[in-house]
Amino acid sequence: MIIVLRLNHRIFRDKRITSHVALTARAFLADKLYYSGEKDSNFEQSISKVCKQFGSKFEVEHCKDPVRFVKENKDKFTIVHLTCYGLNAQNQVNKLKNRNLIIIVGGEKVEPIYYKLAEYNLAVTKQPISEVSALAILLHLLNNGKELDNEFKDAKLKILESENSKKVVKG
Amino acid sequence: MIIVLRLNHRIFRDKRITSHVALTARAFLADKLYYSGEKDSNFEQSISKVCKQFGSKFEVEHCKDPVRFVKENKDKFTIVHLTCYGLNAQNQVNKLKNRNLIIIVGGEKVEPIYYKLAEYNLAVTKQPISEVSALAILLHLLNNGKELDNEFKDAKLKILESENSKKVVKG
Repeated sequence: MIIVLRLNHRIFRDKRITSHVALTARAFLADKLYYSGEKDSNFEQSISKVCKQFGSKFEVEHCKDPVRFVKENKDKFTIVHLTCYGLNAQNQVNKLKNRNLIIIVGGEKVEPIYYKLAEYNLAVTKQPISEVSALAILLHLLNNGKELDNEFKDAKLKILESENSKKVVKG
Repeated sequence: MIIVLRLNHRIFRDKRITSHVALTARAFLADKLYYSGEKDSNFEQSISKVCKQFGSKFEVEHCKDPVRFVKENKDKFTIVHLTCYGLNAQNQVNKLKNRNLIIIVGGEKVEPIYYKLAEYNLAVTKQPISEVSALAILLHLLNNGKELDNEFKDAKLKILESENSKKVVKG
């Protein structure tokens, strides 16, 4: 089971970035996104609508106390924190395959405690990038790329491959 | 040479997403980002500052007429357009390695002409995701992952690997 924990969501500033994190988590086969910060019903509904239309059991839930959440789940999950200051993800990822993971994805600021709570602080490149691309690459490496060929069986709408048009069919 | 063309930037709505596209393009070894839509000096300066501090010759430039830009460069560059409606990127990527590419990355809406102008409409998963993660995965596949071990030689600041703290040194 792979859970993504997105920290410190702010409705006004982060609306689209948090949506991109959630859509990436879903398409790259994470099971659930918890997000802390401001509760955002519009965001939750928009992701729920994507799941209903395009399939998957992916869920989004608000998390009031993310430090407590991590502490309470440290026994059952390996805690991973994505940060450009961490160890190179590509060298650590084999140890994490087939484990239950909580992947912590920062917002604008990340409290120092998460660096301590995480068993693995992992960097996707040693550069300032984006939590969206860092998450995509980590999940891609964990999946051995299988998300690229994945189809959600419960999809009501399916996007078909096309050379130069938009083709969507009922699932 | 790899150019990313980000369409229809809107200062108010897209500020952070376009920044994430640019930072991802830079860290994943694209050479330049052109963006159309509203010219945004703050965005340009913030990316320029990252390049000065952390290295790379990556550049950002506003593009007034992206259709004309693509048409004028079709002879020298292979035009790729990232869209979930396209062909599976993982099956096409070997044809694109070591070519000069313009990778078109949409904003909220993409005019139909880009589907026709592109030699390759490519999908990273057949799901609604994010232009940020789609770009990261396409560049990762094109690079054979070499961006993960890359260091920019002209960096003034370098982030070091660390298990649980932040280490930055002068380059």
